[in-house]
Amino acid sequence: MDKREDFLPPDDEIVLDDRDIRESETELDEDDRLRPEFVSDVLALAEAGEHEAARERVGRLHPADIADLFELLSDEDRPLFASVLGDLLSPDVLAEMNEHVREQLIDLLAPEQVAEIASELDTDDAVAIIEDMEADEQQAVLQAMEPEDRAAIEDALSFPEESAGRLMQREFVAVPEHVTVGDVIDRLREDQDLTSDFWEIFIVDPMHRPVGTCQLSWILRTPRDIAIGDVMKREQTLIPVDMDQEEVALRFQKYALISAAVVDKAGRLVGMITVDDVVHVIQEEAGEDILRLSGAGDGDINEPIRETYSARVRWLIANLGTALVASTIVAIFGGAIEHMVALAALMPIVAGVGGNAGTQTLAVTVRALAMNQLTDSNSWRAVWREMKIALLNGGTIALIAGTATALWFANPGLGGVIAAAMIVNIFVAGVAGVAIPLFLDRLDQDPAVASSIFVTMTTDSMGFLAFLGLAVASGLTSL
Amino acid sequence: MDKREDFLPPDDEIVLDDRDIRESETELDEDDRLRPEFVSDVLALAEAGEHEAARERVGRLHPADIADLFELLSDEDRPLFASVLGDLLSPDVLAEMNEHVREQLIDLLAPEQVAEIASELDTDDAVAIIEDMEADEQQAVLQAMEPEDRAAIEDALSFPEESAGRLMQREFVAVPEHVTVGDVIDRLREDQDLTSDFWEIFIVDPMHRPVGTCQLSWILRTPRDIAIGDVMKREQTLIPVDMDQEEVALRFQKYALISAAVVDKAGRLVGMITVDDVVHVIQEEAGEDILRLSGAGDGDINEPIRETYSARVRWLIANLGTALVASTIVAIFGGAIEHMVALAALMPIVAGVGGNAGTQTLAVTVRALAMNQLTDSNSWRAVWREMKIALLNGGTIALIAGTATALWFANPGLGGVIAAAMIVNIFVAGVAGVAIPLFLDRLDQDPAVASSIFVTMTTDSMGFLAFLGLAVASGLTSL
Repeated sequence: MDKREDFLPPDDEIVLDDRDIRESETELDEDDRLRPEFVSDVLALAEAGEHEAARERVGRLHPADIADLFELLSDEDRPLFASVLGDLLSPDVLAEMNEHVREQLIDLLAPEQVAEIASELDTDDAVAIIEDMEADEQQAVLQAMEPEDRAAIEDALSFPEESAGRLMQREFVAVPEHVTVGDVIDRLREDQDLTSDFWEIFIVDPMHRPVGTCQLSWILRTPRDIAIGDVMKREQTLIPVDMDQEEVALRFQKYALISAAVVDKAGRLVGMITVDDVVHVIQEEAGEDILRLSGAGDGDINEPIRETYSARVRWLIANLGTALVASTIVAIFGGAIEHMVALAALMPIVAGVGGNAGTQTLAVTVRALAMNQLTDSNSWRAVWREMKIALLNGGTIALIAGTATALWFANPGLGGVIAAAMIVNIFVAGVAGVAIPLFLDRLDQDPAVASSIFVTMTTDSMGFLAFLGLAVASGLTSL
Repeated sequence: MDKREDFLPPDDEIVLDDRDIRESETELDEDDRLRPEFVSDVLALAEAGEHEAARERVGRLHPADIADLFELLSDEDRPLFASVLGDLLSPDVLAEMNEHVREQLIDLLAPEQVAEIASELDTDDAVAIIEDMEADEQQAVLQAMEPEDRAAIEDALSFPEESAGRLMQREFVAVPEHVTVGDVIDRLREDQDLTSDFWEIFIVDPMHRPVGTCQLSWILRTPRDIAIGDVMKREQTLIPVDMDQEEVALRFQKYALISAAVVDKAGRLVGMITVDDVVHVIQEEAGEDILRLSGAGDGDINEPIRETYSARVRWLIANLGTALVASTIVAIFGGAIEHMVALAALMPIVAGVGGNAGTQTLAVTVRALAMNQLTDSNSWRAVWREMKIALLNGGTIALIAGTATALWFANPGLGGVIAAAMIVNIFVAGVAGVAIPLFLDRLDQDPAVASSIFVTMTTDSMGFLAFLGLAVASGLTSL
């Protein structure tokens, strides 16, 4: 273990004194959320025309918190508040903002104003703002930009959405292999145009292809006369410019990267992705699965209602279709239910427990696939594992449900039927929950999107078939 | 926008040549997963006793990929493979490994070997390995460590699990405010004991409390005679040592941090958290919600089956209990179903669509709560929003289901009943899906864990009550 370095006087020289608390901390609760009282206070100030007082209070916040403030306001309050805040609604604030809320505000601005905002941001943030605009508005903004900035944005927009090319910034530091550490430091000090947010520099060959990466701490700890090529690490993780952002995020996570070089098809360095951009992607992608599994679309609470409605209702209609399969099976056994209506009372248990067992397996499988833990090497083992778990769960639930049913209806035969049906049902649910997403993944479909509907259809229909079928087969009732 | 800096000759001086491909890339597929052929090849080599050849092929991999390799092997193959690989199974590999797989391998080692491994890692990684061990094994390992390392680990273990104190490393760089940039660089060059993975340095007062943070790039770009206090940023985000790791992750994400100072109750700097550790937490926490909502426990495909069984069966039993509520309602309407068995056939549609609508709202609400997007400021607005969406969805589904039912059973009255039931059912699902997690969150309960079971219970029982109740009330059937 390395030692800590603090260059400090020993403890006994230390004198206690009072501590300043960052003022803005009083606006936030212990979870870093804006306090409701603060939000209503500044809104009241703005509505009462006390603009200076509102600006003064909001001005103490970090840009990320000002962005949060806009997200917490209602659709109606946002335009008023934007005009009150004026230049406190800075490019940084817009870059931090939820895309739906940002779109609403951007719509209020002239193309020249949007162009000015975009010019002040790094390429990746500027692209995030511009890529969501309508084609004609986008053109108007691009026309209003300086040629150099416009070229960078247009270049980024030429890559597919959610690709490394959109995520990367074009501001980075690259040096040839032969320069010394001292040369690098001198050039960094001289060039005032340079980006200041970088954590590593890239070493490139004359073709501008990366040959190594050097952390800034290594430069700081190396004597000036050493060649940078002797300090850099040659093994590096390069990101192809057309790589999907989900893969970029997994690569950053797997290799614990802080920044990475982005290369074009010829292997030339064209950009840099830093981990702070990837953190958003990881959060989004990991959260997406839960929303997709439930068919909730984008699932953003700031999304316009019309879009949310359209995403969700499509899924509910699909669900209606698959429920029809289960309904048909029940209808076939209509006579059996008429003769023994207790079967109908037990149907919710069959559907509920089977569905839950399927969802458990499905959630685990979808996560493991998303995190690249499940590959062809271990997928059979995963199916086998789920079968064993399903048998254990099925046995336990069969025992409980069977005994309870036998007692409730004073009918041991019915208890036996539901017990047997539970074992079949949970086993089918377990197999469907792991096999369906694996199968969809192999077809290059997103397993989170479509699996749930097939798994539910399988557990519902197979559950009813097993339960009602066994009831008839055992002679408890007749069709 | 800043300009890119590359210190390179113009394009026309560049000469094309062939490009080396990293050899290890041929072991990985396009998604950075180990190819199944590679996995079976090296396993075959190990089993055939060709240890040197196996080591040679595995040795080309990044530690993170060697860790993946162990995860892809079966429980039975791992010990053999560990003995074949020898010191290729390095501390770094173990630090990257899934905790369940690592536990299996650690169990094979003597306490002295574990102690040696832990000593080579940063505190946070060493703690991750040691914290999961049984108390007596843990003691044996700690006894075998150097006093200084042991003290650091014991200090970390004194903080609650999943807190900043466990996540932080004790290796960082802190300097007093008055030193110059040149002093800092000289000291960094001289001190060979220093950690080399840091991206920012902290500036502290004589009490050792952080007063500012300085990115390494700012140091590199500033003349040597400037005081570090004039380069640093005073606004900084401090992490209390007892903060939960989920909050730490949100703070890193919100303020786009690369590293942050961890402070004790007296405000003194005690450690540093870097973003690469937080990336794992973000991924875990975001993925946890989907697993918790489905009641899949930890949901790790490497978890021992007995633990998985115990986590899941508990949830299925709870589900059995709540399904009983729906069953009871159906049982009450037993007579109505006996008189009109078509009702039983339509029950799966009521349960399926209502359940899905509830899950959609639930998933969106749980995500928004986890990301601090939903606070007291906008929770009523969120409920109101879900009501409007539920009415739109309910109306659409009612139209489709009502028409289809009227045609299927040639019974317009039944169509009307299911249409009305769908509107009620989806509305109740929408309200329950947003209100239940908000309520649990206000009680400081994790909304992801318990919401699902209450929402399903509500949608199932209210759905059947509305459907069967309306059928009786409308005179279609009788009790």
